[in-house]
Amino acid sequence: MNAQAYDLIVIGSGPAGQKGAICAAKLRKRVAVIDRRLMIGGVCVHTGTIPSKSVREAIFQLTGLAVRAFYGSNYRGNGEISIQDLSFRVNSIISRETEVIRAQLRRNNIGIYQGTAHFLDPHTIEVNGDGDKTTLHGENVLIACGTRPARSSDIPFDGKRILDTDEFTFATTLPREVIVVGAGVVGLEYASFMAAVGSEVTLIDQRPIILDFVDREIVDALAYHLRQMGTTFRLGEKVTRVGIDEQRDRVFAELESGKKVQGDMLLYAVGRQANGDQLQLEAAGLAADARGKIRVNENYQTAVPHIYAAGDVIGFPALASTSMEQGRLASSRMFGAPSEHMPELFPYGIYTIPEISMVGQTEEKLTAAKVPYEVGISKYIELAKSMMLGDETGMLKMLFDRNTRKLLGVHILGQRATEIIHIGQAVLAHGGSIEYFRDTVFNYPTLAEAYKVAALDGLNKL
Amino acid sequence: MNAQAYDLIVIGSGPAGQKGAICAAKLRKRVAVIDRRLMIGGVCVHTGTIPSKSVREAIFQLTGLAVRAFYGSNYRGNGEISIQDLSFRVNSIISRETEVIRAQLRRNNIGIYQGTAHFLDPHTIEVNGDGDKTTLHGENVLIACGTRPARSSDIPFDGKRILDTDEFTFATTLPREVIVVGAGVVGLEYASFMAAVGSEVTLIDQRPIILDFVDREIVDALAYHLRQMGTTFRLGEKVTRVGIDEQRDRVFAELESGKKVQGDMLLYAVGRQANGDQLQLEAAGLAADARGKIRVNENYQTAVPHIYAAGDVIGFPALASTSMEQGRLASSRMFGAPSEHMPELFPYGIYTIPEISMVGQTEEKLTAAKVPYEVGISKYIELAKSMMLGDETGMLKMLFDRNTRKLLGVHILGQRATEIIHIGQAVLAHGGSIEYFRDTVFNYPTLAEAYKVAALDGLNKL
Repeated sequence: MNAQAYDLIVIGSGPAGQKGAICAAKLRKRVAVIDRRLMIGGVCVHTGTIPSKSVREAIFQLTGLAVRAFYGSNYRGNGEISIQDLSFRVNSIISRETEVIRAQLRRNNIGIYQGTAHFLDPHTIEVNGDGDKTTLHGENVLIACGTRPARSSDIPFDGKRILDTDEFTFATTLPREVIVVGAGVVGLEYASFMAAVGSEVTLIDQRPIILDFVDREIVDALAYHLRQMGTTFRLGEKVTRVGIDEQRDRVFAELESGKKVQGDMLLYAVGRQANGDQLQLEAAGLAADARGKIRVNENYQTAVPHIYAAGDVIGFPALASTSMEQGRLASSRMFGAPSEHMPELFPYGIYTIPEISMVGQTEEKLTAAKVPYEVGISKYIELAKSMMLGDETGMLKMLFDRNTRKLLGVHILGQRATEIIHIGQAVLAHGGSIEYFRDTVFNYPTLAEAYKVAALDGLNKL
Repeated sequence: MNAQAYDLIVIGSGPAGQKGAICAAKLRKRVAVIDRRLMIGGVCVHTGTIPSKSVREAIFQLTGLAVRAFYGSNYRGNGEISIQDLSFRVNSIISRETEVIRAQLRRNNIGIYQGTAHFLDPHTIEVNGDGDKTTLHGENVLIACGTRPARSSDIPFDGKRILDTDEFTFATTLPREVIVVGAGVVGLEYASFMAAVGSEVTLIDQRPIILDFVDREIVDALAYHLRQMGTTFRLGEKVTRVGIDEQRDRVFAELESGKKVQGDMLLYAVGRQANGDQLQLEAAGLAADARGKIRVNENYQTAVPHIYAAGDVIGFPALASTSMEQGRLASSRMFGAPSEHMPELFPYGIYTIPEISMVGQTEEKLTAAKVPYEVGISKYIELAKSMMLGDETGMLKMLFDRNTRKLLGVHILGQRATEIIHIGQAVLAHGGSIEYFRDTVFNYPTLAEAYKVAALDGLNKL
């Protein structure tokens, strides 16, 4: 049997795979995308970014969370939120997003193969789908196979009371008391969602501090608000045993310090394992590292020149946004199309409630680099728009050079942080100064006004 | 009796007055602000921007408008929205905003005088508050006395069924059928709010087209969505008579074309009259024009050099955002503090449902100026975030130079338009190109991603 021949075979249809495939198709290349059945869009669409952010918006809209400031903390919108409300909403978004991606691939004449992929040789990939085997030949290959939750064999996952983060959105009840193990971005996001709908959350992490790459003041404010919503932090604590008390239908976690934490559910959110270990890379002359990751150079090229890799499988920063860009750049480089270097200035979005976004430098980094900076701060509570939105917790903080007044970094906590961060990013990218914000007219009322308030605050300190 | 002496007397505590006063106080000047009793913050806080935008947010949050896309057009959140819900919300925001402004003025040691103001001579102003008279002497004066609704004597206003826009938020029932006379920004905003809560709206304007300064494609889309929500447009139609049919408790408007429109309420939204006619300006050697407006030079200085004017009283663009900037600049110029010229590049925000924002050039202007532009468009329906927010109507459109690829204008319809427009504004202000958006990483999922999608669309056309 002859293999189907393509200019590019993409393994994985998540953000990196999609954008890589579409970019190559627009360069008039013959492109195929392989993904597992029912997984078009990848983990991003099915169990990761899309479901978790959809749950988040549904919580906002269905609980009336945003209006509690006006109606008191007992206001719950349409009464208690139900798992049916959440599931309905999330499933409808997943199926529509899957359709959007499938339509985009089809419109660009990209072949879609459903099944698991592995290399037979550096140019040949076999797709196994429900017993059918297909062999594809690719002049080039883009590996964008993503990650899966890192599971510890010590944890008795049962898909019901003890779950990993890929299973969570399919949970059938909302827990009254929940234990979250792992206070990284994903653990914090889910912890905040559950706290927002009224669960008592215990958040456990071995590390003594959370989100060490984020501005301290922002992280402290987030921790404060999570505590206000009923979250208990157990930081610098190691989990030694997790189990189920079947009689009482309860989950427990024992900590090295001797503490015992109980709940109705335990969410295990300790890192992710890349899927590089599942492609029989050795047949292509490649190898993944112990965490399944694949090493690439600045062109997203692996040790085998015609094989590229992009997205979560190559590691940091492992954001849907950066993965898309990597996929697009990988295809551009592969086919010699002009493309800019991937900007270092990418924003970081953390979709906790309240949400966080940042771009540029932190105080900690500037201090280490001995750059004399000044800080301008705006508290959302002084903005008319945040009153309307019921957000009393937000803040925007900008760092700028005391001498040149050049903007150095922006850090935001609060509603729409992930949207308005791009204003600061644009000014940073163009080498603008804090005076830009002073001299600019902002729509009133908006949260974006926080930039102007913060700039005036900062300039007053000079 | 000696007059209290100040470096600056500000007439009016709306956006222009507040910011002018605070700017002068920060320059260590003695400052007094005069406003009518219970009117700290001006029309902006009490009957204009703040109440109307608060009603808007309340409608979004209380009706579940945003989630209808998922639950079908009959979904109404907590059931029907009540006027009590709206009033409670709006009054709470008004009182908090008033407190914020009062606290800001106090913190800056600004004297607050409550009553109506008029000139006795170019430096002396009398304040009449509830029988008390106070005389103030100012080295400088800033007139920021704002506007009131323009009322026609032909219209039998009764404050109940026939209202102007300042009275509307105090209405005690939500009309089933409403007639809005005047399809300017304010008329359109209120019309869209009422349509969103389920009223049948008839919008009448003498002009044949609405929002002539806005991109046609955006306006057409807005009109389409307003019609979808049950709005009837009667453009190019002149109202000849308005009256009340007492027997049937109905309002009617007769049109020059012979048509007769009926409803439970009529909202008269035809322009505003500036309050320059109420200050006895002649005592200061000044005069207002027929619409009460005061003429100023580029430094916001009137014909009398120590008297400045800013905000709605000087006319276009008469936005809260631009008025703040004018107030701040007027005080800076008055006291010789360094200040940049007011940027021409101010964004325009129209808080209809769906909302509109724009910055820079329109297709119409570029065509007239013979600039060869290209267009990049992103439809919200293809963005993951807009699915989550339930916004299927939005779009972002960017105009750029075909040769230099420089960004020329951005036009947005849809949720958060007034926030994310500032991203385009920052790029425009720094002379950036459409390639910036192609090469930039945006948080995922956000509505801001529309910039990237539109940039790729635009570049594909070259």
